[in-house]
Amino acid sequence: MHALPQLLERLDRYAADNPFPGTPRELYEPCEYILTLGGKRLRPALLLMGYELFRDDPEAALPAAWAVELFHNFTLMHDDIMDAAPLRRGRPTVHTKWNTTAGILSGDVMLIRAYTELAKASRPDIVARLIECFNRVATEVCEGQQMDINFESRSDVSIAEYLRMIELKTAVLLGGALEMGAICAQAAPADVQHLYHFGRLAGIAFQIQDDLLDTYGDPEKFGKQVGGDILQNKKTLLVLRTLEIASGTDRTALRQWMETDASRPDEKIAAVRALFDRNGIPQLIAEEKARYQAEAFGHLEAVGVPAEQMAVLRRTVESLLEREY
Amino acid sequence: MHALPQLLERLDRYAADNPFPGTPRELYEPCEYILTLGGKRLRPALLLMGYELFRDDPEAALPAAWAVELFHNFTLMHDDIMDAAPLRRGRPTVHTKWNTTAGILSGDVMLIRAYTELAKASRPDIVARLIECFNRVATEVCEGQQMDINFESRSDVSIAEYLRMIELKTAVLLGGALEMGAICAQAAPADVQHLYHFGRLAGIAFQIQDDLLDTYGDPEKFGKQVGGDILQNKKTLLVLRTLEIASGTDRTALRQWMETDASRPDEKIAAVRALFDRNGIPQLIAEEKARYQAEAFGHLEAVGVPAEQMAVLRRTVESLLEREY
Repeated sequence: MHALPQLLERLDRYAADNPFPGTPRELYEPCEYILTLGGKRLRPALLLMGYELFRDDPEAALPAAWAVELFHNFTLMHDDIMDAAPLRRGRPTVHTKWNTTAGILSGDVMLIRAYTELAKASRPDIVARLIECFNRVATEVCEGQQMDINFESRSDVSIAEYLRMIELKTAVLLGGALEMGAICAQAAPADVQHLYHFGRLAGIAFQIQDDLLDTYGDPEKFGKQVGGDILQNKKTLLVLRTLEIASGTDRTALRQWMETDASRPDEKIAAVRALFDRNGIPQLIAEEKARYQAEAFGHLEAVGVPAEQMAVLRRTVESLLEREY
Repeated sequence: MHALPQLLERLDRYAADNPFPGTPRELYEPCEYILTLGGKRLRPALLLMGYELFRDDPEAALPAAWAVELFHNFTLMHDDIMDAAPLRRGRPTVHTKWNTTAGILSGDVMLIRAYTELAKASRPDIVARLIECFNRVATEVCEGQQMDINFESRSDVSIAEYLRMIELKTAVLLGGALEMGAICAQAAPADVQHLYHFGRLAGIAFQIQDDLLDTYGDPEKFGKQVGGDILQNKKTLLVLRTLEIASGTDRTALRQWMETDASRPDEKIAAVRALFDRNGIPQLIAEEKARYQAEAFGHLEAVGVPAEQMAVLRRTVESLLEREY
């Protein structure tokens, strides 16, 4: 099994060998652009690691790995329009650098390109199974994005709904990447399923951790402004859990802060954080994350592969779930 | 072989039996909406007819037929945003009735749904071949849309470029529909190719006719305003051919009209039409259409199927290319 940097190097080489066509330039330039904004390539890496649990040479899984990265970037391009986001990783988003038409159409062709990569799998039955998995997950990602949009204008979002939203919007694609890697390797159906659930549950844990770090991350290490979710009045798991368990006074206070546009951001962040702290929210949420993480690794252990064979995948996901930034 | 109304009835029943999920409602309602705006279902009809050249019962081709209709409506939903079109078939477009986010995200999920339908084909090797054909055509449709967008701001569009644009944007999907029908029927490779080229060339003829009818159609029968292309200064084949063959005086006159916003629309339409007439453009364009049509039917005749078996497909495409509205 290859180490993560080796896998990413193989992927980069594959991408370089399979560029978009040169014309129409206006269609394909935005695709090349967003793919070079410096993502971590987490999803294709998971796919390749899923494959390498069962087979040695990741060659056969590279097109599918690139497909999930293309899909991920298609969602970013379209989400950025929907969110009216000016920047991504500190660089102008596609609809800002070009225009909305470019963001829509280049996103569309990138989604189709993902399917073109999937169709390169070595056997028709593998193509058919990859496409089935991909269709299911891609549909769910759209549903998750719609739920997220709906939540913005709702004041009665339940914790169950929130967890379902992050599962669909983020987690199933991580599970799907591992599942597709296992499909490329023609793994046993039970192993394919365990890997899917491993990725899905780890993805939920990852997203819960994201909520936690947005408020409690180390400002030195955290890429974004700590407290950004609070300032945007986002209904994160921290907020929803507080509204569920806090006293009437604290609930009212939190609701009031969320209806207040922060003229003094630091004051708002400190006040909301104090409400979270007083109700033991950081500990509660960390426990919630740990439960999903434990369930995830239970599925990994159930995969019929020697533990040493799993080392790279295990370490990669563990370090992802341990980051403090 | 079934007649066209019977085929469309089968398709409608299939669509009714395979509705979109109920939730998230905001995601799927726009999909249901655009599909009921009363399109002619030309593309799925062609797919089913392509299938029925070789096999009797169209059951096995219904998912692929529905897939091309879903794809077509996905392109309409996204094109309407790019064109800022308020109306489609006299009803509000999706981004007008809902918003741009709905237009983007519901379009995306409809494209993914098209692939979900394709994946229902009876055998993995057919799935793989359908997906390959679909990917090729879908990519070309995006490229054609990009060319069309580029042409708006260019003054040096050549006739060859224009023909390539309508081929990609419109014609290849008609060819692809027939090709996919033949793939579902496991037709011989040569027949699959002939059907693709029949649809592609007939599609180019159809689009040329569309340009002609926009200026010369019967106002009683034509659905849109006759002369609409002239008022929008569109670089149609009529315009490009005039710029190619007319005298310097007529070329200059046409260019001037195209830079003029029409304060008196009727006057502008009449003047541009007079320029076309004086240069024999309607006849020239009709001949151009006839050449593509003849080439198209040459491919149909080369398909290894008795002529009587082709009657429905032949009549359908002939009547499409004979319409005067």
